[in-house]
Amino acid sequence: MRRSKKERQQLLKQKINENPFITDESLAEFFHVSVQTIRLDRLELSIPELRERIKHVAEKQFDTVKALSLEEVIGEIIDLQLDQRAISILDIGPEHVFSRTKIARGHHLFAQANSLAVAIIDDELALTSKANVRFTRRVKQGERVIAKAKVINNEKERTKVEVTSFVEQELVFSGEFHMYRRDLLSEGEKGEHEDRN
Amino acid sequence: MRRSKKERQQLLKQKINENPFITDESLAEFFHVSVQTIRLDRLELSIPELRERIKHVAEKQFDTVKALSLEEVIGEIIDLQLDQRAISILDIGPEHVFSRTKIARGHHLFAQANSLAVAIIDDELALTSKANVRFTRRVKQGERVIAKAKVINNEKERTKVEVTSFVEQELVFSGEFHMYRRDLLSEGEKGEHEDRN
Repeated sequence: MRRSKKERQQLLKQKINENPFITDESLAEFFHVSVQTIRLDRLELSIPELRERIKHVAEKQFDTVKALSLEEVIGEIIDLQLDQRAISILDIGPEHVFSRTKIARGHHLFAQANSLAVAIIDDELALTSKANVRFTRRVKQGERVIAKAKVINNEKERTKVEVTSFVEQELVFSGEFHMYRRDLLSEGEKGEHEDRN
Repeated sequence: MRRSKKERQQLLKQKINENPFITDESLAEFFHVSVQTIRLDRLELSIPELRERIKHVAEKQFDTVKALSLEEVIGEIIDLQLDQRAISILDIGPEHVFSRTKIARGHHLFAQANSLAVAIIDDELALTSKANVRFTRRVKQGERVIAKAKVINNEKERTKVEVTSFVEQELVFSGEFHMYRRDLLSEGEKGEHEDRN
């Protein structure tokens, strides 16, 4: 059952609205058309290509990370409101997968989520004390993982961050990170007995 | 209160027996003597240097990893009995730490433990479905982390692996990994509905 061009373009617009990070390849697969057809559809509808759409989201003002340097974040941060929420993108390349199965290795999904949980903290020091994570769907090489973090509990020096990661709006990973935090600038490092968390 | 040379050498022998992975630097610190003194003590006692001691452990026969290739293991495997227990060593270098604090990043300790939990599985496919982990003590650049894994529960296609990681016999990380496993060779890959775990 092939859709008419008009139907397809309407649905295409809707799908990109729902998920601005969807690739032309995924759209082509979804609509059973060629990637070239999707590109022409986008041109006719004046929808910019994926890279531009990401840049557009990224250019909206967001906070600066404090607890680590931006290069230390695994994945690319595209939204950040300190102590509230954060989003990052990680494209799964050959360096992230088991050579035999091309399935993404768990510690890379963990690293993306964990570094987002560090980045969300509005303090100079943020360390993970505990994490409970679930890998709910295999992620393959070539897929794009979007991780969303939000602070769900914030007490003095303790913050709980929930991270959910998606490929094409399908949940692939979820985790609860218990973070220890401290304001290094105002307090300075204390004695060794505080060095545990 | 300085020990006599004889006392020190006796205790030194005992300490290395308890923990063959202890460095000369740690021993020197423990005994409040120079690293040179420790080296001379070892010479007199005919205790090989650390690198040799590690090689000695490693040369004892151990099983070959099945679920991933040896280069994919994070850290160096020094003992492996499939479906029973495994040990690996990870030396924390500058690439593993936060640049500002020189504290090891959580995902590297996670990666060492998780890849050991994969390596221990006696099947061609091993994937992590769930992990509960704790970071119990900060690990600094230059420290050596010894991770010990053991299978604590083994049902068809499901294996629970416990990993505890130590620096100088002090617990720095512990985790419980729920693994999904399958014998790819005899079964072959099945339908998409089995592709979740």
